Amino acid sequence: MKALLVIDMQNGFLHASSPLFIAGAPATVPACQKVIDFCRSRSIPVFFVTRRYTEATVERCRYGKWASGGKPLSPGCAAEISADMPFSVLPGDYELLKPRYSAFFATALDLILRRLQVDELILTGTTTPNCIRATCVDGLSLDYEITVLSDCTSSVTEEIQQSNLRDMENIGARILSSDSWMREQLIQSPAVCTRCS
Amino acid sequence: MKALLVIDMQNGFLHASSPLFIAGAPATVPACQKVIDFCRSRSIPVFFVTRRYTEATVERCRYGKWASGGKPLSPGCAAEISADMPFSVLPGDYELLKPRYSAFFATALDLILRRLQVDELILTGTTTPNCIRATCVDGLSLDYEITVLSDCTSSVTEEIQQSNLRDMENIGARILSSDSWMREQLIQSPAVCTRCS
Repeated sequence: MKALLVIDMQNGFLHASSPLFIAGAPATVPACQKVIDFCRSRSIPVFFVTRRYTEATVERCRYGKWASGGKPLSPGCAAEISADMPFSVLPGDYELLKPRYSAFFATALDLILRRLQVDELILTGTTTPNCIRATCVDGLSLDYEITVLSDCTSSVTEEIQQSNLRDMENIGARILSSDSWMREQLIQSPAVCTRCS
Repeated sequence: MKALLVIDMQNGFLHASSPLFIAGAPATVPACQKVIDFCRSRSIPVFFVTRRYTEATVERCRYGKWASGGKPLSPGCAAEISADMPFSVLPGDYELLKPRYSAFFATALDLILRRLQVDELILTGTTTPNCIRATCVDGLSLDYEITVLSDCTSSVTEEIQQSNLRDMENIGARILSSDSWMREQLIQSPAVCTRCS
């Protein structure tokens, strides 16, 4: 059983006015939306895992940059650097707040995935070296199979993107483009026609 | 309060005959030993965090390589690929087994560090992209200050080493050579003469 994770795709990371802006992230929104729609159409659960910062929950190592840059992703900050997502959450989707880099760290993600009998995670979102990779490592440590969709993840530079995809592949994750992954799903289990079934 | 972590410096990672060999690791043994001795001389606690593999505890994503390569780091494997370390553990040092990449994952490390009132970790050992980095990210997530000693950590290639040191610096860790770090300690708090104090 598979699940899709969409991590930290929020204004505070997607807009150039934010101190936490990820240069490669805006371009990945259409590919992420396509994968989200594809998963919903095949009953693969979609998890939106995001941040909401407060004085108490921002990482200590990120505090200075955050506090001096308009406190992105926090209540009351400007709309461009808010916690809002470019995607609509639909009934049946899951929403989780995460306080740190990994989607597993101090969240109920593992408990929910076990209940759903998920054993394979598809990772999308930003940023590749931090939240995607930390989630990948924790997921592998918890014995999930991990696929990272290369064009649905992003970094500040292309070199950082590529070196992190390489390291995740070395440690046991699969790295695929979203098109390749969706094609693979169609071959493995063609969509069921709800009129005939 | 500081603590030194020495991670996965074991025959199974240090010897070329192991399928888990880290090419850069053997050369770091002398620098690690120097830092270990320095920390002991200044009452900075030293933690040896290591692996012992069994069928049930090897990572699923590493299982094939491990099983077909002489089952390194497991009871009964050849001495060159055993779980032994090139360092002696002395009274006062700490020893912890870790089942996954991060030294915090499913271990008592955080509990012990809290009891010792440690708030800053010095990371040494191997391999930089996996166990060092996973420990770094968990340590930062738990609000520890993190310093990674560049010449006491290692990777399969120099490019992997450098790109991972860069990423850890970007996320908030300090990267220093062991000489620079020891010099800094001597300046911040010169050694106490036990005869005069």
